[in-house]
Amino acid sequence: LPLRISYQGEPGAYSEQACLSFFGPRITLDPCEDLSEVFRRVERGMSDRGVVPAENSVEGTVNQTYDLLLHSKLKITGETNLKIVHCLIGFPGTKLNEIREVYSHPQALAQCRRFIIKLGYRPIPAYDTAGSIKIIKEKGIRSAAAIASESAASIYQMKVLRRGIGDVKNNFTRFFILAKHDSPPTGRDKTSIVFGTRHVPGALHRALTEFAERKVNLTKIESRPTRRKPWEYNFYIDFEGHRKDDVCSEALRCLKRCTSFLRILGSYPRA
Amino acid sequence: LPLRISYQGEPGAYSEQACLSFFGPRITLDPCEDLSEVFRRVERGMSDRGVVPAENSVEGTVNQTYDLLLHSKLKITGETNLKIVHCLIGFPGTKLNEIREVYSHPQALAQCRRFIIKLGYRPIPAYDTAGSIKIIKEKGIRSAAAIASESAASIYQMKVLRRGIGDVKNNFTRFFILAKHDSPPTGRDKTSIVFGTRHVPGALHRALTEFAERKVNLTKIESRPTRRKPWEYNFYIDFEGHRKDDVCSEALRCLKRCTSFLRILGSYPRA
Repeated sequence: LPLRISYQGEPGAYSEQACLSFFGPRITLDPCEDLSEVFRRVERGMSDRGVVPAENSVEGTVNQTYDLLLHSKLKITGETNLKIVHCLIGFPGTKLNEIREVYSHPQALAQCRRFIIKLGYRPIPAYDTAGSIKIIKEKGIRSAAAIASESAASIYQMKVLRRGIGDVKNNFTRFFILAKHDSPPTGRDKTSIVFGTRHVPGALHRALTEFAERKVNLTKIESRPTRRKPWEYNFYIDFEGHRKDDVCSEALRCLKRCTSFLRILGSYPRA
Repeated sequence: LPLRISYQGEPGAYSEQACLSFFGPRITLDPCEDLSEVFRRVERGMSDRGVVPAENSVEGTVNQTYDLLLHSKLKITGETNLKIVHCLIGFPGTKLNEIREVYSHPQALAQCRRFIIKLGYRPIPAYDTAGSIKIIKEKGIRSAAAIASESAASIYQMKVLRRGIGDVKNNFTRFFILAKHDSPPTGRDKTSIVFGTRHVPGALHRALTEFAERKVNLTKIESRPTRRKPWEYNFYIDFEGHRKDDVCSEALRCLKRCTSFLRILGSYPRA
């Protein structure tokens, strides 16, 4: 039986491309309306894996994913980087100067800001990149275009009017692969954790010392509000190594003692 | 002559409330279409101060503000915290169960997620909280409502149907006050900086050591993509003290030596 993979978005969404690039074509794709639904379906065993966006190399962290990870029992069992090539998509034969409005997900609009300003389009936020093609197709007017991937254009039988309209050419989105368990050590792993600090000056520095002293390399640090008290933060850290590697497991054991809580989100092979 | 204060949003926006709560009513309000326009107007002397959202205690950092600060010559000269009370706003006499769609800024929709799901409304993203009232008023249909502040409702002569619909009651947004110069020391100050780290393991830890060793208390740390190379970050830090205080100026001098670049965004009295 092929693996059933949940992701957020319409068919043709970048998340769908991430599923296919990580697992190959022999999977059952399970599009969900929102990210929390992806988590829910994998948690309940209705799906084998979830593929969720973690961060974009231009726009930064996908906050909702991090907030959902905090309370979920799911583990990060893999990661994959997808190159993002934004395309302007419209009805066949439409000229760029006939377009007035451009629909897309706010992150995609933000990533094509310069192109949109240069051509004087009015940006209109939508819930999904691929879904925005559906909107303009339903509207049926040539003065609207969408920003999405090339594959999304072909799914909706619409035309790529301009390829690669993003402000930054080196644009990648990193996705987490979610499952009920994380991955065994491979020798080239990463680990993701989240922790809270005690309310003493230097608490974050103290926590990072556990990694620095052991020469464990951090690849990302992110802070998110705790939502319990204003201006209190949890810290999300990715580091090189597997939670079962000697040096990493020692660092985690010591980290636990100097933090208010510590959760290991998972160890997985580096992309 | 009253001070001219630029902010992003329509009249009645939370940013406008922040202007009034920080400067009082004797100011000239200058609403702008987007955040970059606020920066531009203060930089060019068309306005005396800018008021921009920095972070929300539930949703986190306002990325665009941080990205604009990186390249602007403006300084942070003050901060203010505004309590956010989201209201469901519609035509007078509308009942909650007549509503199908709710318009607002994506952050406001996210902050009222539970209320929206409970009542089964369809969330529709708009560019601005106050502006979303304008949209539903123009549409003139009773099956739509907006999420915005109480004062925005009165400006558009629309009715607050339900007050305080946010998921988290203790909801604050912190705003930066921007000007061409920062503020002199008061003894109760904060300083904001941004820096890049050298590409060596433990580089962030090394940088934070300069503060920890001198018992300078960090109140916030935020990472943002550099946009030059995928998975490279700049770090934004707020700490207690003024850049001219002996211990802080020493920490900054040493920090400069162990970072790839360092910019002081400003020192200002704590809110």
